[in-house]
Amino acid sequence: MSVAGPLSGVTVIDMTRVLAGPYCTMVLADLGARVIKVENRAGGDDARQFGPFLKGKSAYFMSLNRGKESIALDLKNAEDRAVFEELLSHADVLVENYRGGTMEKLGYGWEVLHKKHPRLIYASASGFGHSGPYSHRPAYDMVVQGMGGIMSLTGHPGSPPTRVGTSVGDITAGLFTTIGVNAALLHREKTGEGQKVDVAMLDCQIAILENAIARYMATGQIPGPIGARHPSITPFEAYQCADGHIVIAAGNDALWQRLCEALEVPALAKDPRFLTNPQRTEHVGELKAVLEALLVEQSVAEWLEVLEVAGVPCGPINNVEQALTDPHVLSRNMVVSMTDPEVGELRMAGNPIKLSAFPDPTTRAPAPALDGDRAKILAELSARKEPVS
Amino acid sequence: MSVAGPLSGVTVIDMTRVLAGPYCTMVLADLGARVIKVENRAGGDDARQFGPFLKGKSAYFMSLNRGKESIALDLKNAEDRAVFEELLSHADVLVENYRGGTMEKLGYGWEVLHKKHPRLIYASASGFGHSGPYSHRPAYDMVVQGMGGIMSLTGHPGSPPTRVGTSVGDITAGLFTTIGVNAALLHREKTGEGQKVDVAMLDCQIAILENAIARYMATGQIPGPIGARHPSITPFEAYQCADGHIVIAAGNDALWQRLCEALEVPALAKDPRFLTNPQRTEHVGELKAVLEALLVEQSVAEWLEVLEVAGVPCGPINNVEQALTDPHVLSRNMVVSMTDPEVGELRMAGNPIKLSAFPDPTTRAPAPALDGDRAKILAELSARKEPVS
Repeated sequence: MSVAGPLSGVTVIDMTRVLAGPYCTMVLADLGARVIKVENRAGGDDARQFGPFLKGKSAYFMSLNRGKESIALDLKNAEDRAVFEELLSHADVLVENYRGGTMEKLGYGWEVLHKKHPRLIYASASGFGHSGPYSHRPAYDMVVQGMGGIMSLTGHPGSPPTRVGTSVGDITAGLFTTIGVNAALLHREKTGEGQKVDVAMLDCQIAILENAIARYMATGQIPGPIGARHPSITPFEAYQCADGHIVIAAGNDALWQRLCEALEVPALAKDPRFLTNPQRTEHVGELKAVLEALLVEQSVAEWLEVLEVAGVPCGPINNVEQALTDPHVLSRNMVVSMTDPEVGELRMAGNPIKLSAFPDPTTRAPAPALDGDRAKILAELSARKEPVS
Repeated sequence: MSVAGPLSGVTVIDMTRVLAGPYCTMVLADLGARVIKVENRAGGDDARQFGPFLKGKSAYFMSLNRGKESIALDLKNAEDRAVFEELLSHADVLVENYRGGTMEKLGYGWEVLHKKHPRLIYASASGFGHSGPYSHRPAYDMVVQGMGGIMSLTGHPGSPPTRVGTSVGDITAGLFTTIGVNAALLHREKTGEGQKVDVAMLDCQIAILENAIARYMATGQIPGPIGARHPSITPFEAYQCADGHIVIAAGNDALWQRLCEALEVPALAKDPRFLTNPQRTEHVGELKAVLEALLVEQSVAEWLEVLEVAGVPCGPINNVEQALTDPHVLSRNMVVSMTDPEVGELRMAGNPIKLSAFPDPTTRAPAPALDGDRAKILAELSARKEPVS
């Protein structure tokens, strides 16, 4: 079921639910790992209940869990615990996204597991991490988007609070956890030693604040929401055209001059208000008015053609349908499909890590039914002739 | 200068500029890699010119390039090319973020480099990747935020276009590239084979659309902007209190009941409009009105205390200053400092990947001056007794 990749031969025991953890193990699976979901017997991964549904199955769950296997275990039952421990003894990586303290209550905290399985890599993606005053608190994406500062930077001045439209709180934690797992696998390959990877969703929000932190630390001024523009590069914004908005990102003086030529207003490039990037940023509102007075005369498509010929970075504001049908996106194999035995074909995002040593398949194996791989997994364990992988 | 980590002993030649590539090599450095920036002689990395400045130095550049080394080389000059090629012969990884085709023009495309350095890992983080119709086009963060769909999901219905307040177009590409580099290092450790990692910023935007893709593929309906709430979980939103907004994320029925008890309106949990998550999502506007009528009576701080005791996931909407002074964020060592010889202390985001086998230092070495490590690097190369690492 696994795809071929640099993690082929790596077995991941996946106790994660909903998004941050399953996103991490999805990326690991896309890189070739075998991922075995260990789900509870009471319905399994919560995301199985998140709509919309196709023939009763969650499209969201199916996308995030493509190509994984599933076994349902009750970790308060002695027999199931024995199966779980047997699975761990053949595994390379354990990933979980419970809140801090839960694994210890189950008797599977890092200290215990490391003693028993010194080569096992233990990765945790939790809301607040395994240390600090909030470590036992629950979190969801939006809680850390609010606490971590990104919501204070997103939206228009004066508008109500604005959440980033996808779950960047979960997804960035999933990505940092994946980086940690891969680095730990490399370390183990060299030393034989397993280690713990502790990633907190809130920490990851701090890690992606980039220029907002630099601006605050350098000036003491608290950055606010910036609408649809860059805080310190101009012109770098969404502008109104006849039939919608266009994004123009002229990141340096040469591109600014090229933009003025393409708009057939070469004199604008010599306007003393707009000569340098700091001056353009100081007069950002005036510049926007001047540019939109020109841009509003033609359509987005017409301007895209003009600016692309001129080599000025620009683009449309696509909705999800437009993004997913863009010929470049399709040519990069960023929309892959899986065929579920009941639902039929479902299309989903592909793997953005393109590797020269491995193919980038256009299809994925379906997501597992709850406990759908029990017989096979138990047979492998009882055979014991060779590791699960 | 490097920190100790799972990538200790790995040498990265870093030709990247601005954000996506430097973010990748910053994470690699935080994991222990030695990173040598190869900059042009005409001012080096563009980000050295991005304000705000401290004693003439960019705070933004210093944050992203902490602990790296710098040598300035003109890759059109034969002598400098010889130095560059000597550097490559001792390196493990090359990272670049030029637009597609630039490395080939310099004579350093993947095919050429792989033939000469079969163990070298070549990683590219570009706007559109190295294949497909747009591969030679320039891109900046906001262009891919617009094209990739995330801007169509961010903001309030009817509001003007809204950019995510940090550069998620660059940062997610940096993270996926880091994952690819680590996976390729693991593969090389096992097989001796280097490979190319090709990551496109636009592809990464598709990869993070998560539930928006699933909703579109399952229903054919194009998702729109959703303000400050989750599209399919309710209550999961920012709500008005007496003195500001609070985020409440009651992700399942048990949390919803707990919320009603904490607000001292247990009857609300039995209201037929709000019994299940699908019903609450259908009546999201009515529910918001009911909740805000209660919440507006007290302050955010008062409600946070009540809801935390009740175990309901919640949080404030922090600005950058509040986020960076939060006691939990500080206890997780998510604000580290470096001491620049001219500027003095500058604080910046820490590393969110906490590893049990390595310390998480509270300081970082400063960012390099342009060409600041030339003498040392050239001496190492001429010594040649051992590899650069």
